[in-house]
Amino acid sequence: MKPTILQPAEIEKRSFAIITEELGNRTFPDGVAEVVKRVIHTTADFDYADNLAFSPDAVERGKQALRQGATVVTDTNMALAGVSKTTLAKFGGKAVCFMADPDVAREAKERGVTRAAVSMERAAALEGPVLFAIGNAPTALIRLHELIEAGQVQPALVIGAPVGFVNVVESKELFIGSDTPHIVACGRKGGSNVAAAIVNALLYQLYTREGFES
Amino acid sequence: MKPTILQPAEIEKRSFAIITEELGNRTFPDGVAEVVKRVIHTTADFDYADNLAFSPDAVERGKQALRQGATVVTDTNMALAGVSKTTLAKFGGKAVCFMADPDVAREAKERGVTRAAVSMERAAALEGPVLFAIGNAPTALIRLHELIEAGQVQPALVIGAPVGFVNVVESKELFIGSDTPHIVACGRKGGSNVAAAIVNALLYQLYTREGFES
Repeated sequence: MKPTILQPAEIEKRSFAIITEELGNRTFPDGVAEVVKRVIHTTADFDYADNLAFSPDAVERGKQALRQGATVVTDTNMALAGVSKTTLAKFGGKAVCFMADPDVAREAKERGVTRAAVSMERAAALEGPVLFAIGNAPTALIRLHELIEAGQVQPALVIGAPVGFVNVVESKELFIGSDTPHIVACGRKGGSNVAAAIVNALLYQLYTREGFES
Repeated sequence: MKPTILQPAEIEKRSFAIITEELGNRTFPDGVAEVVKRVIHTTADFDYADNLAFSPDAVERGKQALRQGATVVTDTNMALAGVSKTTLAKFGGKAVCFMADPDVAREAKERGVTRAAVSMERAAALEGPVLFAIGNAPTALIRLHELIEAGQVQPALVIGAPVGFVNVVESKELFIGSDTPHIVACGRKGGSNVAAAIVNALLYQLYTREGFES
């Protein structure tokens, strides 16, 4: 049987209804539910109903920063591509990724550190509220944690969602339970798509896209 | 305890060793193993050990097309960002995504179809071998299937990895068992990251990156 052609907004609406139904009697606080469901929508992986950790007020702090025109810093061009820049721009915000800058590559090589670590240093020098969306590099989270400890940056929110098998869990544990506002994908799972989905879940709570109801 | 800082190539090597170990006595044909492991590396989701479907010779056909300088067509800018363009370029290949073209948006609106469907029509007109890497839109796969049936395009390989809950499974089933060379993420799971990882898994079998052993 041929699938019926539906417009993306209609597909998204039906998808969220299915996700809500399959979550059954699981309940989440307002704001948190939207994040959990959007990550499941992005991955079709219900493990995220259990493995996202939110610091108190993380969602509200993230939304407040975005409303004030925050800069979203990603650690991959893939996450950068996934963040809704048009929605960000409604609030005067923008998204940046320093990973592909030749300067960053050169400095990383000279110092024997990762490009991700140097990218975090670049981001720490930005003005205005900054929301970090890390979906790939544990070294980004580790360096970011050092910069916070040294008082060199005070993120509005850290989305910690590197994926993988080496140093990933440890890098996330630096944030869980810390005073830095955070949303962390615990365990091995995560990814650039997850990091971008969390940013978008916050943005779409502030701004309803044309043709989309949530 | 502070995680030790490792370079990305070293992290990747250790990660693949862990994945291989945890796959235990599961075996895959040469070429297929590299794809399965890279998708698990990208998602930390071992479900992909079971849900990737390969048509006969899919890996060889994909590699052959890439070696000939194929164009990789994606259905999101996120997948486009994830594909290793520098590796593609070693063989004279490139990656393209038509989703954000104003022309595509205009035509889709006029005809009441999705941008993804129009994007596939644009791609069908490309010269040379084309490898489709679809990680988001079921309508891309559905329209692509129609174009193939109508003899308007003969893909070198279709990577079918839309993620989600509506029309997704059905869109993938159009390809499973078909004569079109395909690698499909069966079921609901997939994503732009998965589609890009499959392309890269083929590319890295052809070209070893500096500092990387696989």
